[in-house]
This record gives sequence, C-alpha cells and structure tokens, in this order.
Amino acid sequence: MGNKRKKISVIGSGFTGATTALMVAQKELGDVVLVDIPNMEDPTKGKALDMLEASPVQGFDANVIGTSNYEDTKESDLVIITAGIARKPGMSRDDLVNTNAKIMKAVTQEIVTYSPETTIVVLTNPVDAMTYTVYKESGFPKERVIGQSGVLDTARFRTFVAQELNVSVKDVTGFVLGGHGDDMVPLIRYSYAGGIPLEKLIPKERLDAIVKRTRTGGGEIVNLLGNGSAYYAPAASITVMAEAILKDQRRILPSIAYLEGEYGYSNIYLGVPTILGGNGIEEVIELDLTDDEKAALDKSAESVKKVLDILE
Amino acid sequence: MGNKRKKISVIGSGFTGATTALMVAQKELGDVVLVDIPNMEDPTKGKALDMLEASPVQGFDANVIGTSNYEDTKESDLVIITAGIARKPGMSRDDLVNTNAKIMKAVTQEIVTYSPETTIVVLTNPVDAMTYTVYKESGFPKERVIGQSGVLDTARFRTFVAQELNVSVKDVTGFVLGGHGDDMVPLIRYSYAGGIPLEKLIPKERLDAIVKRTRTGGGEIVNLLGNGSAYYAPAASITVMAEAILKDQRRILPSIAYLEGEYGYSNIYLGVPTILGGNGIEEVIELDLTDDEKAALDKSAESVKKVLDILE
Amino acid sequence: MGNKRKKISVIGSGFTGATTALMVAQKELGDVVLVDIPNMEDPTKGKALDMLEASPVQGFDANVIGTSNYEDTKESDLVIITAGIARKPGMSRDDLVNTNAKIMKAVTQEIVTYSPETTIVVLTNPVDAMTYTVYKESGFPKERVIGQSGVLDTARFRTFVAQELNVSVKDVTGFVLGGHGDDMVPLIRYSYAGGIPLEKLIPKERLDAIVKRTRTGGGEIVNLLGNGSAYYAPAASITVMAEAILKDQRRILPSIAYLEGEYGYSNIYLGVPTILGGNGIEEVIELDLTDDEKAALDKSAESVKKVLDILE
Amino acid sequence: MGNKRKKISVIGSGFTGATTALMVAQKELGDVVLVDIPNMEDPTKGKALDMLEASPVQGFDANVIGTSNYEDTKESDLVIITAGIARKPGMSRDDLVNTNAKIMKAVTQEIVTYSPETTIVVLTNPVDAMTYTVYKESGFPKERVIGQSGVLDTARFRTFVAQELNVSVKDVTGFVLGGHGDDMVPLIRYSYAGGIPLEKLIPKERLDAIVKRTRTGGGEIVNLLGNGSAYYAPAASITVMAEAILKDQRRILPSIAYLEGEYGYSNIYLGVPTILGGNGIEEVIELDLTDDEKAALDKSAESVKKVLDILE
Repeated sequence: MGNKRKKISVIGSGFTGATTALMVAQKELGDVVLVDIPNMEDPTKGKALDMLEASPVQGFDANVIGTSNYEDTKESDLVIITAGIARKPGMSRDDLVNTNAKIMKAVTQEIVTYSPETTIVVLTNPVDAMTYTVYKESGFPKERVIGQSGVLDTARFRTFVAQELNVSVKDVTGFVLGGHGDDMVPLIRYSYAGGIPLEKLIPKERLDAIVKRTRTGGGEIVNLLGNGSAYYAPAASITVMAEAILKDQRRILPSIAYLEGEYGYSNIYLGVPTILGGNGIEEVIELDLTDDEKAALDKSAESVKKVLDILE
Repeated sequence: MGNKRKKISVIGSGFTGATTALMVAQKELGDVVLVDIPNMEDPTKGKALDMLEASPVQGFDANVIGTSNYEDTKESDLVIITAGIARKPGMSRDDLVNTNAKIMKAVTQEIVTYSPETTIVVLTNPVDAMTYTVYKESGFPKERVIGQSGVLDTARFRTFVAQELNVSVKDVTGFVLGGHGDDMVPLIRYSYAGGIPLEKLIPKERLDAIVKRTRTGGGEIVNLLGNGSAYYAPAASITVMAEAILKDQRRILPSIAYLEGEYGYSNIYLGVPTILGGNGIEEVIELDLTDDEKAALDKSAESVKKVLDILE
Repeated sequence: MGNKRKKISVIGSGFTGATTALMVAQKELGDVVLVDIPNMEDPTKGKALDMLEASPVQGFDANVIGTSNYEDTKESDLVIITAGIARKPGMSRDDLVNTNAKIMKAVTQEIVTYSPETTIVVLTNPVDAMTYTVYKESGFPKERVIGQSGVLDTARFRTFVAQELNVSVKDVTGFVLGGHGDDMVPLIRYSYAGGIPLEKLIPKERLDAIVKRTRTGGGEIVNLLGNGSAYYAPAASITVMAEAILKDQRRILPSIAYLEGEYGYSNIYLGVPTILGGNGIEEVIELDLTDDEKAALDKSAESVKKVLDILE
Repeated sequence: MGNKRKKISVIGSGFTGATTALMVAQKELGDVVLVDIPNMEDPTKGKALDMLEASPVQGFDANVIGTSNYEDTKESDLVIITAGIARKPGMSRDDLVNTNAKIMKAVTQEIVTYSPETTIVVLTNPVDAMTYTVYKESGFPKERVIGQSGVLDTARFRTFVAQELNVSVKDVTGFVLGGHGDDMVPLIRYSYAGGIPLEKLIPKERLDAIVKRTRTGGGEIVNLLGNGSAYYAPAASITVMAEAILKDQRRILPSIAYLEGEYGYSNIYLGVPTILGGNGIEEVIELDLTDDEKAALDKSAESVKKVLDILE
C-alpha cells in the first residue's frame, strides 16, 4: 500500500527523448527511466545524471536514470517511445518505415515483458504507422496505445497565430485532424483567439499562410538546424499527454487513436480529438465534418494507409 | 511607463545556452534573445523557434528569438554569457584561456554598447578568469558582473548526498568556496540534510568520496557523454541566479565575485557566498575559516591567479 | 536602476482581498500591501503576517504587509480595489451604491496621491458603476482603470461545463459580454470544450440550465455560505488579470472597460473582450453581434446606466 | 488499473481546513473532499464550490466537494484532520482537551470505516495529544498517524530570520523538537541562513527574541486577528506534509511521531525530525542532544504527558 511514486520510461535518449525526460521530471510526474541501446548506454547515463543534478536547483523530486537494460523499466506506469532513426539523404521512404517498424517491434516486446499493464505513447515517425505497429505488437487494448502528432501541430499553429495577433499563446487554440505534418487537416473553424473564431480576426490569405507554415513546421526547424530535427516542442507535446494520463485529467487533446468505425475508418491509427485520462484514450470525440473536411481527412487516411501497406 | 516585460539575452546557443534559454522562458522571467555568431544564426533561430513552439503547451508567455545581431539584445535586463570553446585534445591550456578571453572581450563590447545598464552573469570556462575578463572589459561596477560555479558544484554535491541518504534533494544543502571543479573548497561543516550536519549522517569515507565525485562532476559527465559536456545542471544553475536577480529575491547563493579585501584577496574573481538581488551581488558574506579551509582557499586563489597571469 | 521587485496594493482585507493577496504572493508577482481602514488595522496585519509565514513553506519570495496607512502603498505597480460593503437586509440598492461610491472616491484619492502612475483593477460591487467612479475620480487614462467581472463569470461557466462533460477545466472556455451576474450576456456560440462549440456537445436545455446557474453563481455561493459571499474564485479572477498586466502578457480576457463608441456605447464601463498587458487595457476587441445578442447587451448596458444614474 | 486520481479528505471546513483544501487542490495532489458536521454542510459545500470555480482560472484539475457524509471520503489516500474547537474564554484546558478528543474519536471511527488503508495527518490542538488519540482509536500502524507542528513552527522562525537578515525565505532553515508553541525546543545550532549557522549572523539577543516570537507565534496572530487564529501558514504546513506523503518524496520534515524508545521516550507522540514518504513516517531521525537540549525536551515531553493524563 502507501503512495508509491510513479515510473515513466522514455525509450530513446536522443534530443527528443532526453528533453521529454527533463520535462516529465520537472513536473514531478514520477521517476524517469531513460533507455537506449547498449552502445549508447554511457551517453544515456550522462544525460540522465546531468538532469538529475539539475533537480536540487530546479526543485523537483524525481529520480532519473539512464540504462540499456529494460529490466529497469519494470512496472512503468507510462512508456514513451521516441526511439527510431531519422530519414537520411538517399534513404527510401520504405527503408525508413521498415527500419523504424523493426525498432518498434523490438522495443514493444521489451515493454510488454516488463510492464504488461502500462500505457504507451508513441512519437517515432511516421507516427501513425509506428503507433499501429506498437499496437499490433503489444496486444494491448487500443486505449493504451496512443500516438502524438496533433498536440505538436496545434502548438505550432498556436504559436504562429499568437505572433500574428501579438497576443498570449495561452488564449489561442487550434484544431487538427488526420495525419502529421503534410497530411494534417486543420479545422480553422474550430480554432480561436480568446474564443473568437480566427476567421474573424485574421485575413484569409494570412491564415492560409499560417496553415501552410504549420504543415511544414517540422521541416522549417530541420532546415534551420541544418543537422537534426525539432525536440523542444515535440517533448513538450508528449509531456502534456503524459500528464493528462498520469494525473487522470480527462483532457481533450488530439491523439493518434485506433479507429473502429469512428469517422468512417477502421483498423487504422489516425489523429482525432480524444479525451485523455487515467485509462489512456477514454473517448474518441466524433464531429460532423463538412464535405471538404471529410475529403481532406480521406486523403490523409489514405496517405496513412499507404504507409501501413509498406509494413505488410 | 507601464509594466514592460523584461529581456534576457543569452550569448552562445550551444546546449548550455539553449537549455538556459528554455529554463528562463519556462519561468516567465522575460523575453529571451539567444545570440550566436553569424554562421550559427540559422541553428540559433531554429532552437529559438522550437522552444517558442513549446510555449503554448508548456503554458509560458515568453518570446524567444535567435539572432546574430546584437542590436536585438538592446536594453537587456540581464545578459548571460555561455559562449566560448571547449578544450580540445592537443589544445594547450593557455590557448583555451586566450581564445575564450578574446571571445569574452568581443561579446562584452557588444553588451556594453547595447545594454550599458545591464547585469552580466558568466558561465564560460575557465569561469573565474573569464568573469574577470568581462569585468575589466565592461567597465561595469563589480556588483553587475558575476560568475557561476558554486551553484552547480553544490547542486552536484546535493544530488550525491540525497542519493546516499535516499532523501529529497529539497532538504540537502551544500557549501563551497573558491574556484570551480578541482579547485573547489567544500565546507562540509556547512552542509546539511534536513538541517543536520552531514558529518553526523554519513561516514567520513563516504563523504570524502562524495566530495571527490563533486570535484570531478563535470568530468564525469564529459566521460559519459563521450562528446560534449554537461548542460542541464549548468543551465539550471545559471537560471536560478538569473531568477534571484530579475525577481530581486536577495537569495544567498555562491557566486564568483570580485573581491576587494574580502577573505584577504584583492583584484580577483573568486567563489564566495553572496546575496544576489536586483542589483546583482548585493553583498559578499565573509566567514571565519579554519586554518585548513584558509589554506585550501589560498591554493584555489593561486590557481585562479595563474590563469589570470596567462591573460596578461 | 537594477531589478526592483514590483509592488501590488490590495485595498480591502476582507476574505476576497486577503485571498487575492495570497494568490498574488504565491505567484511571486511582487510584494503585497494589504490595506484596510484604521480600526481593521490589526486584523489586516494578522492576515498579512499569517500569509507571510506561509511563504517559506509554499516557497514564494514576496513580502506581505498589512496597514491602514496609504503611504505604504507608495509607487505601487498595480492597485486592486476590493473594499466596500455588501448589501445588507433592509438596505436599499441606492444606499449600497452611494456608500460604496463614497468608499471608491476616498480610496481613489489616496491611490492617486501615492501612485499616480499605477493601474487600478476594481472588484467592488456593483462593479461596473464602481469602476466608473474610480475612473472619474482618478483622472487616469481609461486604459489604467479596469473592472473585473467576466473572468469570474466565465470561470463559473467553465466549471459547470467541465462537470457536465466530465472533462478538464483546462479545455473549456466561455465568453460573456455586458454587466456582472444577472446582467451578463453569455455568447454560447463562442464557448467551447476542446475547441468544439458547446452547442454540439450539450443539449440546449442543459446549456440553458448552465447559463442560468452561472448568472446566479454569486447568489448560489451566498446561499450556501449563509453568511458572506464568494472569495476564492473572485480572488483567482482578479489575480489572473493582475498577472496579465504585471507580466505584460497581452492576454485576451473579458474586462470592464470604458467605452468610447465601441459596441455603440459611450461614457460607460461595460464588460467586453479586451487585451490586457503592461499598459492595462491595450485594446477593446469588437465583435459583430446578432440582433439577439445586441438586444441583450443593450439591456445590460441600460441596467448599468441605471446604477450610474443613482450616482449622479 | 490505470492511473486513478488520488483522493484527499480534509476533515473540518473552518479557515484552516478550507485553506488546506485550496492549497492541496492548487498543487493538483488529487481530488479533495472537505468534510464537516451536518449543520455545517451548506457552508462546506459553498466553500468547496467557490474554490472549484477558481480552478479554471488558477489552472488546476482537482475536483473539490463539500459534504457531511463520510461515505464521500471512501478510499482516501490521505486524510487531514483540522476539526475541533478552539479554546474559548472561561473554558478550562481539560474541557478543551476532552471535547476535542471526543471529536477525534468520532472522526477517526469514520475514517477507519471508509479508508482503512489511509494515512492520517492531524492538526487539531493540542496536537500532540490529539494525534495520540487518533492513533489509539484508529488501530493504525504508527507510521500512518502523524501530527503537524514543527513545519509551522519552523516556518514562522524562518520568516522572522529572513526579515532580520533581509534575505530570501528560501535560504533560511530552522529546526525544532518537542511540543508545539510554548513547549517547542528550538535547536538554534541546526538553523541556518545560506548554510551559515545563525549564531554567526545574528546577535544572541536578537536570536533569543526571534525564538521567543516563534514560540508565541500562534498567539501573535490570535491577538492581531482579534477573533480567530492563524490559518494560512498552518494550511501551507500541512500541505507540504501531504505532498511529501502523496508524492513519496522522502522529505526530512519535523513531524509529531509515535516514539518507541527514540530519544528515550515511549508511548508518546512528540515532535522529532522524520523522513516523510509514501508510507507516512518512514524514519525517525535520532540526534545527539546536549544536556540543555535534552532537559528542554524532557520538559516538553512532560508537558505533553500531562495533557495525555487528562485524557485517561
């Protein structure tokens, strides 16, 4: 009995994984186990120790360890998967998908072995397909395997809108459906500043430019960094999902969820509005779509299906 | 008039500088300007944009921009210097010192031009000498040029003690004087867990091991990472100093301060207990030292002097 | 020079004033001066000291003092007025209005004497008229005299909606115009859960019930308490407005603002969406209203005018 | 399975109980059930609703309900007892003790019925004896029945020291043993500012005055308020203990603990340094005392024993 501290395992100790570990620890959501492959064990331990050494100054009580041994993840309350490779020049899309799928399968087997009751959130790209892979491999109920994309996409959208209007990011909301990045389906009519529909505040051509910039938001960072991809906003996005689940907040957040008929799709993971709480995805919220929106979502779903086809 | 948001400039957009920018923004201490040299401008912009895109999700209101143009730092309320090179294999110590001193001078001229009333906190190594260089170059009053080392050293010490005793880091304190790392002079008799002197709680040989590990804490991370040095705990350390100054908290924190007779030293920057508030170093706290402690501090001061000699 | 800590004066040390002082201190927005009349000086000092003694445990650095001497409020960055009497059985409405108007005038003279450059937020009821009174008495520009009502009204609305849908309060928004309480004009079409218009999520009769409950939300608490009125949610509401101003956040929040033609009204203080930042009300946001909404707002404005007539 | 939100029940909805409920909710430690006797049910519901309505604005997800039905406390993870009467003019000390003991017994029976696995923290005065009463009545293991006094006593001490030295409360610590208030045994040699023993920083006569003021700190607030006693700092104190337990932080905090030989006492609840974690009091820390300190602690223990004698 008693009040045992929660345990969150973050698989993959790259920039995104490490930043996620930091943000999870800063919020005192529980102890953090940062996991990577054996030949990355030392750097993983180094990052974990460095952030642990930040804890007295930042004022958080959370143990953070680095490891390559999945036994250390035993009985995790939540597992976050950030592992995987990024697409390199000359690499075909199929190669990327199959390599990361292989990583997902291996990681999932370890997770299932040591934490059969846990919930998994996936960040690895292509995230819709990778979440599907983890779901199939884990044998977990669908509500306990969740992908991240919409929180990040809307975070970027909100940032650009707040800049455009010169107002606090706290008062801007966004809404997306469908796949990540290029495949995302923004629902502008459900996006607001201070509750006011953005269409009333921002001229159409500016809004279009913001949507376009959001779609390619990941690429914008890649181009600027020159060598690597975004990690602060992705880590923040997955942390807010982790918080919703670990603190049973029943937040309404966009998740990549397994659909069984919702929005007319089945046997697919796709970005939809959900209620995230202690049981993972507690509900998929269905909306009436306009014909245009439905068409765009169909296109997005097809795009996801195509990636799934590579897998099979 | 009105309540203008504060501005903090962070010079150097490497891991430490970027992580500092994030932590300063998370605490809503003000808007952040992340600065690097022109050929790093794009990556700097990329990191700044990525962390700005985290703001809607993390819930902080702080603009973060990346730039190579010091005009953007105009009228900063605080400037944090993390710029500089790390020692590379084959590089002599003198080369390191002179290269970074040159960087300090160039950076300081820019800071003085655009923010003549600001306060500067220096993190670049060898930090005692680099703080001295910035002080001399800036012509600022001594209370407005401050170096960081003791907050980080005690953070590491506190982490190791908390682990040893299996208690919250919140209840462990440490105390150091003198230079950074190898030159640090830990005052164990002023270090506690829950207010109880550590000597009563931890056997001497274990305490000695902890002190030794703290001294080489930076090297431990370097060895683990394999390629680079610590940044989470350094960034957290400088952020807490920034907070003390910007929020005028009059915190008692170890700082690298310019001494004019305190502890028997003059014309040197050395780690001592200080009160940090709205005016920077508002007071240097002088303590009676035992003969052993004084001897150790003398040694530390000499070591700093030797680096200063390289400069002149 | 340097970074001086801000000062916030809270006039009126009743439950609302004291709770506001606590919340402002918890957020480290600045030092707090809690002011009441001379024969309440000791209880005011007692409350201030008690909350100051909470600071080491809650971890905030903010001095809190109680006083009846307005000299202590000198150079406040923000003044919050909660002073005034509550309507007692047998008291006519005119008596209430005139008594509180007299208090507003006296308080305002003191504020203007000691803090001629400050911004004032008013919470005293009837708040639309009391804000007007403070504006006229102060001679301040309109953007620096602001009333609170809509943040509280929408907070109650959001609470009831979150309960109805069993979701996080973080994801529910509300929108009101016009006067406080009975006079409030809710814009349901601008109210959402997770960005989804409430009309799509909650049946009309339930929504109507929630609106009705919100309108009488103050009375519901009064009836339950039996002896006194709400203070936690009012204090939280005024604190968020204080934060927006002191941290220059440019948040979109409903404020009671002085109108000069906006929405077709002039020489009146009325609840409208505004941008709150370092200069107080930085912008009044104008919306197209439906005929029904405009009619409801007219009724609300007339109701406010009637109270103003009592004053003159 | 899954991540169920924690439940904290606060018994007694007076100022201390209600403020505790607020602070527990602000920290999102779990949902809060505020309990009082049937004829206080409506005010209890009113306070709970009012603070719930603050949640959208303060940004916390925690349900808060008021009730007089202990069934609502079912399966609480922590129960905080603030119920009880204050000593009134003309009331004998024995009457106070016996009345509150009766209340403790009744409350404890309810707690045991509905939350047999919970941990209980007691704040009701005379707190040493009341904690003993709850322990005996509950039949709980000693580590799950804890009293609060030292956190509050040291909070007051720290406040006065921070004022004396004009430094941040964050850097001042205090240390007490023994009973609450007059009976408290301050260990000045274990009290510091920035790790420096206070004896080196504050002249003896000023330190003595601070100790004296701390001892009578509760009375100082009572005298100022004129009508009632302190609640902000007591609520903050109990909240930090609740946090340590619910988040399994293993903090070193002074608690009123059941002693079985420690410090030479048995069958008594007395203030001692403890480690508070997920299992409640996980350890009593024993210190060597000087003869003076031991004599003072004996006197304090006798004073507690005398109150216990009234009970039996």
